[in-house]
Amino acid sequence: MTTTGSAEPAPRRRRGRPGYDQAAILRAAVELFNRKGYDATSVGDVAKELGLTKPAIYHHVTSKEDLLGQALDDALDELTTVVTEASRERTGETAYERLREVVRRSVEVLVAHQPTVTLLLRVRGNSEVELAALERRRRLDDRLAALVAEAVAEGALRDDVPPPLVSRLLFGMVNSLVEWYRPDGAYEPATVAGAITTIVFDGLAEHER
Amino acid sequence: MTTTGSAEPAPRRRRGRPGYDQAAILRAAVELFNRKGYDATSVGDVAKELGLTKPAIYHHVTSKEDLLGQALDDALDELTTVVTEASRERTGETAYERLREVVRRSVEVLVAHQPTVTLLLRVRGNSEVELAALERRRRLDDRLAALVAEAVAEGALRDDVPPPLVSRLLFGMVNSLVEWYRPDGAYEPATVAGAITTIVFDGLAEHER
Repeated sequence: MTTTGSAEPAPRRRRGRPGYDQAAILRAAVELFNRKGYDATSVGDVAKELGLTKPAIYHHVTSKEDLLGQALDDALDELTTVVTEASRERTGETAYERLREVVRRSVEVLVAHQPTVTLLLRVRGNSEVELAALERRRRLDDRLAALVAEAVAEGALRDDVPPPLVSRLLFGMVNSLVEWYRPDGAYEPATVAGAITTIVFDGLAEHER
Repeated sequence: MTTTGSAEPAPRRRRGRPGYDQAAILRAAVELFNRKGYDATSVGDVAKELGLTKPAIYHHVTSKEDLLGQALDDALDELTTVVTEASRERTGETAYERLREVVRRSVEVLVAHQPTVTLLLRVRGNSEVELAALERRRRLDDRLAALVAEAVAEGALRDDVPPPLVSRLLFGMVNSLVEWYRPDGAYEPATVAGAITTIVFDGLAEHER
């Protein structure tokens, strides 16, 4: 169901009449869901935003929940790819190295898919679609916590903070990006990813090193 | 305008008829705003949630926006107190010590005022009340970034990550609490605050120490 499967930021490719295809409708819907809230947004609002009629929207999507599901799948499919690759054991690569890599790649996904990840992080479980998304998120969180535990077990990370708490806080820091990151702002994605790994793995305090 | 000015978690004190006073109305409204979204919640919904009539609600509050303003002030007043105390220079206390203290106390505020801080962190600036709250938040963020810069200047923190980025990420980690922390869960607030300061200041990597 993913409509923007590539890692490129904000894909502008369009099918059919410019601005009227499914990807454009999804982008407009996600923007409204994030700005006004999902419950307060109607399919009519999406149509109005694009200067279309409601039937023109329904030519491309079956319901508002369909749009929500597509948006959440966009974010979840990208994050699942990143976590799946990081969870896979590879010769010559430690869990610690894979954990650093998953942080770096998560930052890239959050920047390239900021609107749909923002929506995902605000989902509360108010419908079947939202509950399914929360369940997929929970499984990703579990796999990230397992990767942290693996890095602790191999002796690379300190063992005096519980791995599930480390994972919550580390990816809490990563996820906070969606609230303040601006693609036209002061920091490149690589700068932000580098700052996160430096802070979290090496620490900020001078006297500790 | 703050109705829950103390640091105690979820104050249950009530005036007048049990469950019908202003604090109870505010709690119910905040819970609905967080669950359904502010735009999708009406004063009628709040009344229904409490088993009251709309006029009974309007006996205590002037409007839905009034409830939002009170809720946001509750969170902002608490956070402002913490940041103001941390920003004040004190004999014998370094900026680094005050930064660790503001992290610890912010965690306490987020746990004790989780519903109103959750609401605050989701505000997008859709009205005068929201814009005023965003402006207060921005001033707090600026003061936190200044405190980080001060700790770098005194030589306590590494200087190879820009202080505003450190501040964003550090308090992004702290703020992530509102999304997953459960008062009846596995971790005491002090455990979470300790984990954050350990991770961020000392770092997780064994080989760095």
